[in-house]
Amino acid sequence: MKKIAFLGLGTMGQGMAANLLKAGYPVTVWNRMAGRCAPLVAQGARQAATPAQAATDADIVMYCLSDDKAVMELVFESGLLEAVRSGQIVVDLSTVHPDLSRREAAAYAEKGAEFLDAPVFGSKNEAAQAGLWIVVGGKREVYEAVKPALEAMSETTHYMGGNAKGAAMKLVGNLLVAFQLEALGEAMVLATKAGLDPRDVLGVLHVTDFKSPIFDGVGDALVRRDFSMNFALKLMLKDAHLIARFAQDLNAPIPGLAVIRETIKGAVNQGWGEENASALIKALELNAGVTVGGEVR
Amino acid sequence: MKKIAFLGLGTMGQGMAANLLKAGYPVTVWNRMAGRCAPLVAQGARQAATPAQAATDADIVMYCLSDDKAVMELVFESGLLEAVRSGQIVVDLSTVHPDLSRREAAAYAEKGAEFLDAPVFGSKNEAAQAGLWIVVGGKREVYEAVKPALEAMSETTHYMGGNAKGAAMKLVGNLLVAFQLEALGEAMVLATKAGLDPRDVLGVLHVTDFKSPIFDGVGDALVRRDFSMNFALKLMLKDAHLIARFAQDLNAPIPGLAVIRETIKGAVNQGWGEENASALIKALELNAGVTVGGEVR
Amino acid sequence: MKKIAFLGLGTMGQGMAANLLKAGYPVTVWNRMAGRCAPLVAQGARQAATPAQAATDADIVMYCLSDDKAVMELVFESGLLEAVRSGQIVVDLSTVHPDLSRREAAAYAEKGAEFLDAPVFGSKNEAAQAGLWIVVGGKREVYEAVKPALEAMSETTHYMGGNAKGAAMKLVGNLLVAFQLEALGEAMVLATKAGLDPRDVLGVLHVTDFKSPIFDGVGDALVRRDFSMNFALKLMLKDAHLIARFAQDLNAPIPGLAVIRETIKGAVNQGWGEENASALIKALELNAGVTVGGEVR
Amino acid sequence: MKKIAFLGLGTMGQGMAANLLKAGYPVTVWNRMAGRCAPLVAQGARQAATPAQAATDADIVMYCLSDDKAVMELVFESGLLEAVRSGQIVVDLSTVHPDLSRREAAAYAEKGAEFLDAPVFGSKNEAAQAGLWIVVGGKREVYEAVKPALEAMSETTHYMGGNAKGAAMKLVGNLLVAFQLEALGEAMVLATKAGLDPRDVLGVLHVTDFKSPIFDGVGDALVRRDFSMNFALKLMLKDAHLIARFAQDLNAPIPGLAVIRETIKGAVNQGWGEENASALIKALELNAGVTVGGEVR
Repeated sequence: MKKIAFLGLGTMGQGMAANLLKAGYPVTVWNRMAGRCAPLVAQGARQAATPAQAATDADIVMYCLSDDKAVMELVFESGLLEAVRSGQIVVDLSTVHPDLSRREAAAYAEKGAEFLDAPVFGSKNEAAQAGLWIVVGGKREVYEAVKPALEAMSETTHYMGGNAKGAAMKLVGNLLVAFQLEALGEAMVLATKAGLDPRDVLGVLHVTDFKSPIFDGVGDALVRRDFSMNFALKLMLKDAHLIARFAQDLNAPIPGLAVIRETIKGAVNQGWGEENASALIKALELNAGVTVGGEVR
Repeated sequence: MKKIAFLGLGTMGQGMAANLLKAGYPVTVWNRMAGRCAPLVAQGARQAATPAQAATDADIVMYCLSDDKAVMELVFESGLLEAVRSGQIVVDLSTVHPDLSRREAAAYAEKGAEFLDAPVFGSKNEAAQAGLWIVVGGKREVYEAVKPALEAMSETTHYMGGNAKGAAMKLVGNLLVAFQLEALGEAMVLATKAGLDPRDVLGVLHVTDFKSPIFDGVGDALVRRDFSMNFALKLMLKDAHLIARFAQDLNAPIPGLAVIRETIKGAVNQGWGEENASALIKALELNAGVTVGGEVR
Repeated sequence: MKKIAFLGLGTMGQGMAANLLKAGYPVTVWNRMAGRCAPLVAQGARQAATPAQAATDADIVMYCLSDDKAVMELVFESGLLEAVRSGQIVVDLSTVHPDLSRREAAAYAEKGAEFLDAPVFGSKNEAAQAGLWIVVGGKREVYEAVKPALEAMSETTHYMGGNAKGAAMKLVGNLLVAFQLEALGEAMVLATKAGLDPRDVLGVLHVTDFKSPIFDGVGDALVRRDFSMNFALKLMLKDAHLIARFAQDLNAPIPGLAVIRETIKGAVNQGWGEENASALIKALELNAGVTVGGEVR
Repeated sequence: MKKIAFLGLGTMGQGMAANLLKAGYPVTVWNRMAGRCAPLVAQGARQAATPAQAATDADIVMYCLSDDKAVMELVFESGLLEAVRSGQIVVDLSTVHPDLSRREAAAYAEKGAEFLDAPVFGSKNEAAQAGLWIVVGGKREVYEAVKPALEAMSETTHYMGGNAKGAAMKLVGNLLVAFQLEALGEAMVLATKAGLDPRDVLGVLHVTDFKSPIFDGVGDALVRRDFSMNFALKLMLKDAHLIARFAQDLNAPIPGLAVIRETIKGAVNQGWGEENASALIKALELNAGVTVGGEVR
């Protein structure tokens, strides 16, 4: 089986690397804070001292980091790029601006290595349960070569086209997630003001042709006032910034997302950035003067 | 079985009345333009000359009309209210402002009759296939009494509370529909500008936890440039006006819906009001200078 | 000189009626709460017990009320309409929907009387100092006949066209006022977050080609945290609703105003409706987590 | 008198450099396309072959360029920074992100030179007529030293605080300009739909306490359908992007500006980027299906 280097063991990386191990891949891990390697070493991973060392004898180098800045540092400042050699395949699983994907692809191409931008949909739970949905940009034959490893971490994989097309698809999808959280928030706040029982409303949203799994999951947590982090609101704000920037670059109108970004800003200004992304609904509640599933203030 | 008067045989009423007949209910129909009664008479319905005549010996009087104005005229100006008598149950299946539901309830109560506001989710296809989702406001025991007839037309029925709560839930749900059409539109336009193949994008939206049946149906029609009417855009604009008015009455913030209403206005100003509601996406395309699934202009 | 009946002595009416008296007009006043007549009686006005009595021997009947509902009640339920007779001129100085202006015009026309919709720009101070700006709809010769009396209360008068055109112009102008308050709010909040001294910012806004008297007046009060009522925020929300409704009727896109209306809703939900309209800025501050001219929270 | 190097002779720089010459300053000019130097040489300027050469014996080095990228190239890639020496004062008159102002300040400080960020309000006409309004960030004593030269180009100058505060004030002001253009557009489109004569509307906007010089100038051109460039719409879009980015960095809510940016995007997508900024109103007209001052389509 192909040898895999997995760099970055945050909330997402932990689950993904574990699933590669479960599938039988030899995995070498590295993380900036080395302590996070222990659970994976316990599951059979080797631990490397540096990204370059991890990459040394890998067939595939994967990383999943929190933002563009972290990816820039790993690729261009940690020694990783210098260590990558011809014949290797590098897979960036992070959510970044498509322009960065293009820069990565170009840099690795100069080294004779292949590159896929392969960001993932899903959060902590999906990563842990190999239930991610992965969208991939790069050469089709490289995608096919890596596919079995991607499938070990995911429910589905989707080939979107050349490099940066996976990154683009991720931003398009995140736009939809932002819309659905805002939609649910406006709906539940309006329903609460109208005197509807939020659990009854969720019962309706569980059926109908505009239902969505996200309404069930987030809705249920909302009425329990559970905003414990699955995907942090501050990361959703980061994603909203990425989408807005991408739409700026393409001069694509996004009137709805533009307004939703403002709601998220407001929620982060209240100090809710470390809570779950669904906490954006609390910004709507604040402006409405009501609490969904709670007392009317 | 209970005798039913069914008033209003538009796109929705046709299917609903037919399903009542199929379930074995004796149905008397009336429609403002009498010609629309013929198909139902062919299926066994009796035809009445006036709403009052239709209501005369019915146990349940149902109507499904296009807007508040049509309901006002039917209830308060056609002679229907005068004809209704103690012991009858009146069921308004139309989408109207909750204040009108309250007025109807009060008017029928003075006559000793019961009233349910029971608007339906779903459009032409769901009405024809008894696949509607019905949300009901009124006394619970009245709901229970009418439930079998409602079930003959629907996939699910939902009791939401006292009068006007069904109407309120309908507006809350329609807010979500508007969001999802706008979301899909912004996503597909952005994807098109990014050079993604719209069919590949829809493949991703068919999975993930933010998927929704509406994305599949509308998305597929969109890439085929099929905007043939299932639910007319002009009716969606009417609904957006109702939601905005309802949110005004409750002073509920709806920043996203407010912006989406503007998109719909723009599409109607281009003359697309008679097309399917998904034609709002064409307003986004117009401002973006691209066509999803077509040539980039 | 023409005899004038002046009905409605609220914040605006007080100043307007006083200026008519100052200009030498014989004025008969009426107010729903009769106590508010006293200051004007002290300045020489006669007091009537009912609107109809006030109108009896007037050449011109003027009224300035708070909203559509108050105008409807005065015109159609107080006996005023019945008292109006051929040859009289009725002038509605209130801010109402243009449709109501049309209804008033039609009702008075049936009585053989003339009608002008003549809403006023300016608030308490401008009313007191005869500094209003009046926009008039109706027949031009009727406007000319009433002009001297209007000029006794205003800085300028503007003939806009037939009936309802004055009311329409008022809503167009109020849209601009709402924009400028939101603009000032977003600007001052951004400036505060950027560490600029708000007084320095106002110094810049006092010059430039995008300056406006409203920036000076509201801006100065803002940094003093003075939100004492000149024009109440709750009335501005009422106006925003009127504008939104008018734009709905005409299917005119108002994306900016739609968003601004949401800001005002939020401010009213915080309980600031009785403060000055500039208190909408406090809703922006709330979401920003800063206070202009105060401590950064 | 102090010797001035003036770099960048675009629409704005032409007028500014000419006014320095008129005030008697010895001015050395440089422009990337050398041909634009001729008119100023004819007025007595010396022409330099490179930015570095222009700066050699100058007391003050000024530049006015179109965007961040142009400033980056001039400062860090043209040899200018290397040429600047202790005792000189560098003044950036361009509209750039405050972060770039900070970078410039730091770079010049390392060379022992002083730096002011001093962007200007006003466009072609104000630049030509020494009618600009200049907002300055940097040390107060440096501002005082340069003030006479700034006054030769402007109507007023405003000291805003330390470095980057001038750049910040410029973005705050441009936010207000964007609001006023959108406000005027929404108002005029609504008025047109309401059947008002746009010239009558402008007559009202010429008085009132929400009047603004920009309404007079832009409004008059609008009804004449004159969109000839004074300040290009594409530059306004660039500024809107800068403001959005600045608000993102500070997490400042700008719901109105966010929506206005979308209107501008739409107008640029129609190919109107080279017209005057007021052409954003044409995007509102497109969505409204009317033309202000023209035929109703």
